[in-house]
Amino acid sequence: MNRETTWRDYPAWLAALPRPVPAELSSPAELAAFEAESYTESCGGAPRFRFVCEKELGEGYRIERPDPDTLVIRGGEQGLLYGTYEAIFDLVCGSAFPAGVQRPACALRMLDSWDNTDGSVERGYSGRSIWFEGGAFRYEPERIRQLARMLASAGINVLCINNVNVDPTARTLIGPLLPETAAFARLLRPFGVRLMLSIDFAAPMFLGDPDRGWEGEPLPTADPLDDGVRRWWERCAARIYEAIPDFAGFLVKADSEHRPGPNTYGRSHAEGANMLAAALAPHGGVLVWRAFVYNCMQDWRDSKTDRPCAAYDLYAPLDGQFADNVILQVKYGPYDFQVREPISPLLLGMRRTHLAIELQPAQEYTGQQIDLFAMPLMWRELFDQLGRGGVRAVAGVSNLGRDDCWTGHPFAALNLYALGRFAWDPEQEPEALIRRWLRLSGYAEDEEVLTPLLLRSGRTYEKYTAPLGLCWMLSPEGHYGPSPWGYEFMVWGTYNRADRERVGIDRTAAGTGFLLQYPPELAARYEDPAACPDEYLLFFHRLPYSFRMRDGRTLIQRIYDDHFEGYEEVLRMQETLATLHLPERDCEIVTGRMEKQRLNAREWRDVTNTFFHRLSGVPDARGRKIYD
Amino acid sequence: MNRETTWRDYPAWLAALPRPVPAELSSPAELAAFEAESYTESCGGAPRFRFVCEKELGEGYRIERPDPDTLVIRGGEQGLLYGTYEAIFDLVCGSAFPAGVQRPACALRMLDSWDNTDGSVERGYSGRSIWFEGGAFRYEPERIRQLARMLASAGINVLCINNVNVDPTARTLIGPLLPETAAFARLLRPFGVRLMLSIDFAAPMFLGDPDRGWEGEPLPTADPLDDGVRRWWERCAARIYEAIPDFAGFLVKADSEHRPGPNTYGRSHAEGANMLAAALAPHGGVLVWRAFVYNCMQDWRDSKTDRPCAAYDLYAPLDGQFADNVILQVKYGPYDFQVREPISPLLLGMRRTHLAIELQPAQEYTGQQIDLFAMPLMWRELFDQLGRGGVRAVAGVSNLGRDDCWTGHPFAALNLYALGRFAWDPEQEPEALIRRWLRLSGYAEDEEVLTPLLLRSGRTYEKYTAPLGLCWMLSPEGHYGPSPWGYEFMVWGTYNRADRERVGIDRTAAGTGFLLQYPPELAARYEDPAACPDEYLLFFHRLPYSFRMRDGRTLIQRIYDDHFEGYEEVLRMQETLATLHLPERDCEIVTGRMEKQRLNAREWRDVTNTFFHRLSGVPDARGRKIYD
Repeated sequence: MNRETTWRDYPAWLAALPRPVPAELSSPAELAAFEAESYTESCGGAPRFRFVCEKELGEGYRIERPDPDTLVIRGGEQGLLYGTYEAIFDLVCGSAFPAGVQRPACALRMLDSWDNTDGSVERGYSGRSIWFEGGAFRYEPERIRQLARMLASAGINVLCINNVNVDPTARTLIGPLLPETAAFARLLRPFGVRLMLSIDFAAPMFLGDPDRGWEGEPLPTADPLDDGVRRWWERCAARIYEAIPDFAGFLVKADSEHRPGPNTYGRSHAEGANMLAAALAPHGGVLVWRAFVYNCMQDWRDSKTDRPCAAYDLYAPLDGQFADNVILQVKYGPYDFQVREPISPLLLGMRRTHLAIELQPAQEYTGQQIDLFAMPLMWRELFDQLGRGGVRAVAGVSNLGRDDCWTGHPFAALNLYALGRFAWDPEQEPEALIRRWLRLSGYAEDEEVLTPLLLRSGRTYEKYTAPLGLCWMLSPEGHYGPSPWGYEFMVWGTYNRADRERVGIDRTAAGTGFLLQYPPELAARYEDPAACPDEYLLFFHRLPYSFRMRDGRTLIQRIYDDHFEGYEEVLRMQETLATLHLPERDCEIVTGRMEKQRLNAREWRDVTNTFFHRLSGVPDARGRKIYD
Repeated sequence: MNRETTWRDYPAWLAALPRPVPAELSSPAELAAFEAESYTESCGGAPRFRFVCEKELGEGYRIERPDPDTLVIRGGEQGLLYGTYEAIFDLVCGSAFPAGVQRPACALRMLDSWDNTDGSVERGYSGRSIWFEGGAFRYEPERIRQLARMLASAGINVLCINNVNVDPTARTLIGPLLPETAAFARLLRPFGVRLMLSIDFAAPMFLGDPDRGWEGEPLPTADPLDDGVRRWWERCAARIYEAIPDFAGFLVKADSEHRPGPNTYGRSHAEGANMLAAALAPHGGVLVWRAFVYNCMQDWRDSKTDRPCAAYDLYAPLDGQFADNVILQVKYGPYDFQVREPISPLLLGMRRTHLAIELQPAQEYTGQQIDLFAMPLMWRELFDQLGRGGVRAVAGVSNLGRDDCWTGHPFAALNLYALGRFAWDPEQEPEALIRRWLRLSGYAEDEEVLTPLLLRSGRTYEKYTAPLGLCWMLSPEGHYGPSPWGYEFMVWGTYNRADRERVGIDRTAAGTGFLLQYPPELAARYEDPAACPDEYLLFFHRLPYSFRMRDGRTLIQRIYDDHFEGYEEVLRMQETLATLHLPERDCEIVTGRMEKQRLNAREWRDVTNTFFHRLSGVPDARGRKIYD
C-alpha cells in the first residue's frame, strides 16, 4: 500500500462496507438503508435491497429473495439492520441466506471493556482506550461509529465502556459526567448498541445528590437495605434514563478482590443486586452482577480451601432469590479465564437465576494477542457443556484498543466477531465461523490454509503452556510467559502442588469436593481418572507422574510430549504464515508477533519440561533435550 | 510525647546536638565551634572546648584534655569538626578519647543516593527523596543541614545525590540545572560533605554546548576517544567547578543493565573512565566507575555462563590501565548485595587500581528496613576478607528518605552510622560500634538487650531466607519475601538449579571456574566442600541433599533447621522488643515492623522448607511441620 494504514482499514471483516457511516443517521433502519445502498453501489451486479419493517420482530429478521435482483429484509427496526449485515455478508461469502425468521438466542450480547478513565486498559493488549484519556472522554466520533458498526455487524448489542474495577473518575460517569456519557451513548444508538456502565457499589458514598446536580454531602453508607441508599439509586437511575433512554443497565463487581459490596453491611449478594435492580426496573434496565468472588487472601498452606468452590458455595444458596432483571455473570470456568477449565458448575446449577456466561476475547491468559488463539473451538466446547438455553446473556471482555487494527493482532478480530455470533446463536460451528470471518476479512485466498491453522491455534497454545488443565503456571506479573511456581505460594488460591511424586489437586469427594458441585452424571464422568477427559485430568485429580493415560503413555511423558509438540506446531505455523498472501497492512505485525510467539512457546516448553524433570527425575522417553 | 514527632527528632544519634545548625555558618571550623558551644551549654559540667587549627592535619584531628574542664581539639579545618563530634560523642557515651592523631583510613567515604528527580527513590524504603520532587530540586534547607550534619558526624564526606540510573532530568544536573545543583552543594559545604553526581555516559548526546549555556546541538557521539567528546567533558567539568569548587566528581554506571557506555564505541572501560577522569583531574575531582557489569540477558539454559565471573573477567585484564583519579567501585560480593556472598574476587585482584567497596545500607535484599538487619557484623567479615589497605574508598547505597525517622526503621540508622565509621576505620569492632550507637541514640537503658539482638539480627535474617549462600530465592518484583524459583528461569543469571537430588552451582575448576578468580590460598579453602565455610557452601558447590555437614547433619536437615531456628529467633526478638523502654516516638513503627518481620519470616521459613521438601522428599528429622 502506498498510504499509511489506519484504523479506517479495520476491522477487516467490514471490508465490504468501506464508506464511513455519516453522522446524521439516527436509527438502525436508516443505517440499514445506508449500508445496503453503499454495498449495492460498490458491488456491480448486487441485488437491490427492500426493507419491510415488522416491529414485532424486534431484533429478528427474515431475508427473502423474490427474484435474483431483489432482496427483501423484513424485521423489527433493529432486525432490519441485522438482516442487512447478514445479507451483505452472505453475498460477500457466497453463502446461502438463512431460511426463516432469525432471532438472537440471547437478548443481551455484551462487550465488557475494562477501560480506565486515565486511558489505560486493564488486560488490554491493543493499545490505549479508544474513548478515555487523561481522566475524561476523548475520542473521534467517526471512530466510535466504526466501533459501533463493528459490534452491530457481529450482533453485539450492549457495550460496557468502563472497567469493572471502577476508578474514581469513572464513578462519576453516572453522575457529574453524565452529559458526556450520554453524548457517547448517542453515537452508539443508530447501531442498536446500548450503553452499559460498571458502577461502584459504594457510589452513594462518593457522589452527591442526584436531584441537586450531584451537589451536597454523599451518604454515610451504601447499605442496600438502607432507605436513603435505595432512594439514592432510584433517583440516580431516573437521571440516567432522562439522559440515556436506551441505557442498558449496570455491571457490578462487588465484594471481590477488595471491591466494596453488600457483605460490608452483612447483606447478601441477592439483597445487594436486587436493590440496584429495583432502581433500574421501571426504566427497563438490567443489573448484571459478576459472580467472580473468592478469597483472594488465601494462605497457600491451607489445602482445605479450594478457590474453584467459592462462587458456587456463595451463589447456589441464593438461587431463586434474584429479581427478574438481575443477571448473574459467571466466568466460563471456576477459576479465571485459564486456557483450559471445565465449565463453571454455577452455570449448570442456577436454574432459577438468569445467567450470563463471561468469555474473554481479551487474551489475558491466552497469549495477549501475541500468540494466536482463535476461541471458537473453546467456546463450542463450553456451550456444548452448557446445553441449550443455558444462559440469557453472553458477555465478552473486550480485546479492543486504539491500535490501528483495533485488536492488537489482526487475526484477534476473529474472537470479537465470534463473540457476537456465539451470543446470537450458540450453535456456531467453529470451522464455518472461521471460514466466514476469513472471507469477510480479505483472507479468502488463504482460507484453506488459515482455517485449520486458526482452528487448532488454541489447542497448540494449550499444549505448550499448562498441561492437562493444571492452570496458573504463568507469570503472576504480566500473565504472560511460563512461571511454574509463580502462583504457588501466593494468596490467590492458585496452586499445582507439584512435588517429586505427584502433581495436581484432588477435587473429588475424597479431596476438596469441588466435583460435587456438578450435576451427578458429569461428576461421575470426571470422578474417575480413567474416565476423565485428558484435558481436565489435572484439574480434577492429583496423580503420580507414572499414571498411565488411556493411550498407554505415562502422565509425565504426556506432559513432555505435549510441550515438544506444541512448539513443533508453532514452528509449522510460522512456516505456514510465511507462505500466505497477507495484505501488506498485516504483514509486519503478523510476522513480528509470530516470531514472538515462537520464542514464547520455546521458553514455555523448556521451562515447563525442566520444571517437571527436576521434580520427577524422569527422562524423556524419546531422548529429546530437556535442560537441567 | 505531647507534640508530633518530626524529622527534627532524628537521627537519634544526634540527640546530644538538639540546636539546629544556623544557616549563616560557612565553614567546618565555625560549625565545630557552634556544636561544641551548644553541647557545653546544654550539658551542665561539660568541659570547655578549645580549637587549634593545624592545617596539615586535613581531615585528621587529635583530642587533648590538659585539665578536666578543658578539651583541646587540634586538627585541619575539617579535622576540627570531626574531632568535635568524636569528643562530644565520647562524652555522651562515657568513652575514653582516642589517643594520638586520628586520620581516616579512606579518603573517600561516600553515600550513594539512588534518588530520581521525580522524587522516587530506587530501592528506597524510607519514603520519597529528601531533595527531589516533581522533576526538580525541592527541599527544606534546614533539613538538608541536618542531613549533612548526620553524615559529617558519622564521618561521611561525599554525597552523591542522584541515581546511578540517570533519569532525563538528572542528566541536566551538570548542565542547565547546575545553578540549583550548586546551591544544594553550598548547603553541604560547612559540613565538609562534598557533592558527587551520577552522570550519563552519553550526556554529550543530550546536552548542548557547556560554553554557550548548554545551547546548541548535542554531539552526535559519546565515543570516549572522540576529540569533541573529550573537549565537551573538559568544558563541562570547568563549568561545574566554577559553580562548585569542592565538587567531588562523577559516579558512572556504564554498559550495565542497558545503560550506555564505552562498549558502544568499541572502547574499553579504562578508555571510557580515563577520558572522564582527565576532565576532572585539573580540578581535583575523582571518577568513580561502577564495576557492576554482567550479561543481564542471559539464557537460563546456558549453564556455562556464570554471572559472578563477569566483573573479574571484564576488569582484571584492565588492572593498571586506569588513571590515578579513577576509582573502580565494586559491590562487596560478585552478585548483587545478597544476604550472603563471598567477597568479590575483583576486590582482591586489582592491585594496581584504586578500589571502592560498595556496601548497601539500603536493605534491598536484606529486609527493606522492615526486617531488622544490623550490618556491622557482615561488614566486619567482609573487611576481614579484604585485608588492610584493600580499598581507597567506601561507598554505601543510602537508606535515607523523607520519613520522619529518615531510615524507615529507627534502628536502620545504625547502618548509616556504621557505614561512616567503617569507612573511617575498617577495624571497627561490631559490638562496640553498636553499643556506641545505642548510647548516642537514647537506647542506653536497653543497651544490654539490644546489643546482642542487633548483633545477631543479620544472621537471623540469613537463616530464615536463602540457605548457605544460595542467593536469589526471593521475589524478583519487590526483592522482598520468598520465591524459591522466582529468579530461576529469568535473564538475570541468578539460578539455584535445585532438582530432586541436588542444589547449587559448582563454581570450582570442575564447574564454572569462578573460584579460580580468587587468590590461590582462598580458592583452596573454598574448593573442598568439606573445608568450605558453611555459609558459602552452596555458593561454591552443587551438593546432594544427603551431603554430610561438618557437624554431622545432612545438608537438607541443615536447611530445615536454619529455617525453623530463624523463625524461632524472630519470635524471641519480638518478645524481647516488647520488654524494652523504647522512646514513644519509636514504639509504633518498631512494633509494627517487628510483626511484619515475624510474618515475613514465617512465610519464608515455610515456603523454603516446602520447596526443598517437595524436591527432596526428605522429612524433617525432628518431625516439625513442613507444609505440602
